[in-house]
Amino acid sequence: MKQELEERKEKIMPDGRAMILAYDQGFEHGPRDFLGHPESANLEYILDIAKRGRFTGIVLHAGLAEKYEPEIREAKVPLILKLNGKSELYTEEDPYSPQLYSVGDALALGATAVGYTVYSGSKYEDQMNKEFAAIIREAHNKGLPAIGWMYPRGKAIFDRKSASRTLKIALEEQEQTNLAIDETPSIVAYGARIGLELGADIVKVKYTGSPESFQQVVQSTFPTKVVMAGGPRTRTDEEFLSRVKDVLTAGAIGLAVGRNIWQRKDPLTISEKIHEIIFGS
Amino acid sequence: MKQELEERKEKIMPDGRAMILAYDQGFEHGPRDFLGHPESANLEYILDIAKRGRFTGIVLHAGLAEKYEPEIREAKVPLILKLNGKSELYTEEDPYSPQLYSVGDALALGATAVGYTVYSGSKYEDQMNKEFAAIIREAHNKGLPAIGWMYPRGKAIFDRKSASRTLKIALEEQEQTNLAIDETPSIVAYGARIGLELGADIVKVKYTGSPESFQQVVQSTFPTKVVMAGGPRTRTDEEFLSRVKDVLTAGAIGLAVGRNIWQRKDPLTISEKIHEIIFGS
Amino acid sequence: MKQELEERKEKIMPDGRAMILAYDQGFEHGPRDFLGHPESANLEYILDIAKRGRFTGIVLHAGLAEKYEPEIREAKVPLILKLNGKSELYTEEDPYSPQLYSVGDALALGATAVGYTVYSGSKYEDQMNKEFAAIIREAHNKGLPAIGWMYPRGKAIFDRKSASRTLKIALEEQEQTNLAIDETPSIVAYGARIGLELGADIVKVKYTGSPESFQQVVQSTFPTKVVMAGGPRTRTDEEFLSRVKDVLTAGAIGLAVGRNIWQRKDPLTISEKIHEIIFGS
Amino acid sequence: MKQELEERKEKIMPDGRAMILAYDQGFEHGPRDFLGHPESANLEYILDIAKRGRFTGIVLHAGLAEKYEPEIREAKVPLILKLNGKSELYTEEDPYSPQLYSVGDALALGATAVGYTVYSGSKYEDQMNKEFAAIIREAHNKGLPAIGWMYPRGKAIFDRKSASRTLKIALEEQEQTNLAIDETPSIVAYGARIGLELGADIVKVKYTGSPESFQQVVQSTFPTKVVMAGGPRTRTDEEFLSRVKDVLTAGAIGLAVGRNIWQRKDPLTISEKIHEIIFGS
Amino acid sequence: MKQELEERKEKIMPDGRAMILAYDQGFEHGPRDFLGHPESANLEYILDIAKRGRFTGIVLHAGLAEKYEPEIREAKVPLILKLNGKSELYTEEDPYSPQLYSVGDALALGATAVGYTVYSGSKYEDQMNKEFAAIIREAHNKGLPAIGWMYPRGKAIFDRKSASRTLKIALEEQEQTNLAIDETPSIVAYGARIGLELGADIVKVKYTGSPESFQQVVQSTFPTKVVMAGGPRTRTDEEFLSRVKDVLTAGAIGLAVGRNIWQRKDPLTISEKIHEIIFGS
Repeated sequence: MKQELEERKEKIMPDGRAMILAYDQGFEHGPRDFLGHPESANLEYILDIAKRGRFTGIVLHAGLAEKYEPEIREAKVPLILKLNGKSELYTEEDPYSPQLYSVGDALALGATAVGYTVYSGSKYEDQMNKEFAAIIREAHNKGLPAIGWMYPRGKAIFDRKSASRTLKIALEEQEQTNLAIDETPSIVAYGARIGLELGADIVKVKYTGSPESFQQVVQSTFPTKVVMAGGPRTRTDEEFLSRVKDVLTAGAIGLAVGRNIWQRKDPLTISEKIHEIIFGS
Repeated sequence: MKQELEERKEKIMPDGRAMILAYDQGFEHGPRDFLGHPESANLEYILDIAKRGRFTGIVLHAGLAEKYEPEIREAKVPLILKLNGKSELYTEEDPYSPQLYSVGDALALGATAVGYTVYSGSKYEDQMNKEFAAIIREAHNKGLPAIGWMYPRGKAIFDRKSASRTLKIALEEQEQTNLAIDETPSIVAYGARIGLELGADIVKVKYTGSPESFQQVVQSTFPTKVVMAGGPRTRTDEEFLSRVKDVLTAGAIGLAVGRNIWQRKDPLTISEKIHEIIFGS
Repeated sequence: MKQELEERKEKIMPDGRAMILAYDQGFEHGPRDFLGHPESANLEYILDIAKRGRFTGIVLHAGLAEKYEPEIREAKVPLILKLNGKSELYTEEDPYSPQLYSVGDALALGATAVGYTVYSGSKYEDQMNKEFAAIIREAHNKGLPAIGWMYPRGKAIFDRKSASRTLKIALEEQEQTNLAIDETPSIVAYGARIGLELGADIVKVKYTGSPESFQQVVQSTFPTKVVMAGGPRTRTDEEFLSRVKDVLTAGAIGLAVGRNIWQRKDPLTISEKIHEIIFGS
Repeated sequence: MKQELEERKEKIMPDGRAMILAYDQGFEHGPRDFLGHPESANLEYILDIAKRGRFTGIVLHAGLAEKYEPEIREAKVPLILKLNGKSELYTEEDPYSPQLYSVGDALALGATAVGYTVYSGSKYEDQMNKEFAAIIREAHNKGLPAIGWMYPRGKAIFDRKSASRTLKIALEEQEQTNLAIDETPSIVAYGARIGLELGADIVKVKYTGSPESFQQVVQSTFPTKVVMAGGPRTRTDEEFLSRVKDVLTAGAIGLAVGRNIWQRKDPLTISEKIHEIIFGS
Repeated sequence: MKQELEERKEKIMPDGRAMILAYDQGFEHGPRDFLGHPESANLEYILDIAKRGRFTGIVLHAGLAEKYEPEIREAKVPLILKLNGKSELYTEEDPYSPQLYSVGDALALGATAVGYTVYSGSKYEDQMNKEFAAIIREAHNKGLPAIGWMYPRGKAIFDRKSASRTLKIALEEQEQTNLAIDETPSIVAYGARIGLELGADIVKVKYTGSPESFQQVVQSTFPTKVVMAGGPRTRTDEEFLSRVKDVLTAGAIGLAVGRNIWQRKDPLTISEKIHEIIFGS
């Protein structure tokens, strides 16, 4: 299966770079993310952006992946099946996002890769590490790359009385920056490192505010590849594109972005600019 | 199995419309629902209504489905096996309705489709999403459509201090209407969307008070079909029939109704009126 | 397996009536139940009563069923293997009685039927409903009838602030009678109904104080058969026999009784009288 | 497998009597039990006692059983593999001792029987009853006898406000004796009875202070055999030997003893005296 | 498989001695451990130390083991796959480190042995004992040695009110020394003994402050082998090397060390000195 794994890696990372369109927000945030642009609730609209915007992968849950199987195949945008998810309706300080589909389901739906979110630092990190570790083993055995959404989160992460030495360093980092705790280099790098230790091929992480600190993340995650999470819409295009340049300078291979694309009036123009930065054309 | 799946969808949605008779209240509410009309405790009475009322499906638990297997087959009303359930005797703020039967059980009992309730927002939503996701995968692999009872419920849903942005929008919607929180468009649409993301073929949801807001629900659930939950008996027939018209105008394909049928003296007259609205005859 | 199922039903319900000897008290209450009559601690004594008293079934755990397999076979009293149990030593408001043996174990031990207790209303009712549902499916597939001990119990059942509508009705019923909450018609009927919904062939329930109210239970459980639980020793024989007559009048098919038999000096005389009432000879 | 089961029973109960050497204290209490006699930390020393002291079984965890497999075989002392265990480092009022090895492991290690501890009355008794019940079924199917360490324990057992009727009787028993609650006849007999109900071949229980009360335990556990737990070292040999005589008079078949043997300077002399009492030579 | 097991033991314990390089800190502590020496974040750098420093094993998680499979094979340093792990971000008093990979995964990755951490005394010790016991059985059946990281830890261990007799002895030991509770001979020996009871081939434990007390640990763990955990960097080389000599004098077979090697400017010099002490050359 090694060859199939390499071929599929090449598909979602042509020339070793990745530009992934995230579309699992209907599960994670609900339809409120579509309110300003109702057409974005419809996968046909999103798939068109993915295809014409030359994205190297689209992230979906099994429902849409199955219902639009022929259209996705025809669009030739590699499918990344997101294997876990949770709604925002249940609001707990220590999040758990359960595995919903198997690696076998991903193959049956024609996926090129699988994705899974780990909230390191949550009191349920044991369950998520367990699930993601097993997914990676099985995915690799079946020739599928695995992508980790590595988001340290939970009560302990935001608790200043926590005994963790990593958090102490993060609090010092925070004093010198405007970053939220889960954006500090130490916390982001730790989440990413766990992706490497478990065997992820790519990790998706938050931006750490500067190319220097992001480089630190990239280096302690090597040889696992790093992509930046797009996050909520930025105020200006420049702000967003500047970040993309920064993370590439820092050694990241690209980004995984959703709302910053399809919550715009003109999603293709920004897509082209991002493609230019990542792939040079 | 794709062909069998399509054939069974056609059975419960002839002409793309559905009129489903719900009869799982003996489990969910207990015999108190039969008090005014003792004959309604007996499936033979209910099955006769389903048949003569031209319903396109009847929702049962395994016990009745098995004990009346020949009668159900003869009545030619498609069986929808409800795979989970809970009694109202245990009253917790965060409900969990456990899976009781398998997709294989449903096939063995001659079911045309399976049903499952998800209480999104409950602290047990992880378990229900996991169970329903696996049910949908297996059902589709075996050629059976899956119907989701998508009912956001739980402490977090009714807690104004909850951090969820969806709930904040729902609270604003509530200020302008008389709706309960779990009837607001944002909450209903989120529950329905999770049905789509997981892969349900039909979702059953509460009415949101107006055709405009219900249309919003239908659109963000596309291409999964939407049916309205009948709910408790309305004061007048007009009130109920008016709702049915509204949801069809909004793009829903029909309704799933129980008490509003069999808690009446004359269940067939109202059934005919509903059939007229949904199927035009 | 349908034919085997029917044959075994006929064995424990000859002429559609049942008179079952319960002997799982060593597990549920411990040896204190044998204190007044030490010989009742010994299965040989009990089995002799079952045989000579013409009982149509004897309820045992796997230990006694296995150790006295030849004797039970020779006595020709059908064995009902009780698949779950709990000691009274752990006293929790919300009881859970775990499954201890499988349907396969029951067959291997020569059982004619299986039994399982469900405490509806307990916070563990989800686990018990799940276990009993799976037991019924497997038992029927293997040709074994399933009997439910349907005993609503748990904190919520006895909590007047509980939001359940069924409990509100039960509290009204209680005001007009001397019944405990778990003996009110609404509560008993709900427990029994869950047995029907899950697919039990027989349910064992508490007496509701009058033939009229017990008839209500029988009717909302139809076509599942109902037997009365014998319960603790009554003061007089007349009191007990009068109850047996009442439940038969109400449509029940018999009773399952233990202490009211083997805690007596002369267990056979009362057994004969009960047999006379149930079978007419 | 019935014949193999009988043969193995004969091995650990020659002439229907048993004298078992317990050596799982390294797990349950830790090396502190070896402090006075460091040589007792070494299985070779213990095995020599077992052999020369003519014990009919030795109780071990899998680690020692595996590492000394040839020596145990050569010594011809039947191996009883203890399938569960817990350290005393975690001190909870409601104990749970998890299953660590399978019946298959026991067979692979050459065991003649398996052992398992049940703490009836603990809030985890459900898990232990479930595990022990499954172990007994599988062991008997594979021709291995099962021995239960039946030790009622947990918060409810020591809580005078507990609603259990058995505990109320135990408290009355306690007023007339110097016994700890878990040594009263009612509590000990209940634990033993659960062993019988689940199907154990032998139960190991605490001494109840008098031959009369211990006889009561033996009778309500019949036909399962009873051995006395040796317990902590007694002050004098006479005290210990007198207990052994008492329990045999009461109908027990012998004892399972550890510290009262290997915490002595001269373990063989006391072993001979015990052998004399149990086997008459 | 016995022969394969012996061969693999010989590989990680040539001449019965072991010198193991631990590199799971990226998971357990995160990238902060690499801050002073950024090159230590890279396995190539670490593997070079392992090879040139003549270590007899290197401890890795599956991610690095898989991504550097050819390099590890070529370096001929036996791979010890660490099967469980947890991040320090979630800071609970009672730790649980879940199993992430299977014994089969270890074989597929070319491992010579497997490792697992047990936090005895944690309220989750039941889960860890269960997992490690099953791992050892399976590993031995498949010819792989098993190494236990035996670290008593958890609320009960540090709680002076704990009823455990072992802890009482440990508190007395502590009064006469400067040791932390989890470094006292009684606590360390108990953890190690559990490794023996479960069947570990080697246990890794903390140093107990003196060769005399460490000998006590070694003796009550016999015949399982003992290695000292390297722990955090010591102030001087002499301090560290002196400890290594002490534990060998006490009967240990070597050590497992990480930060005390790769957090140094010159990791090879200290490695040579350690090799000299352990192997005499």
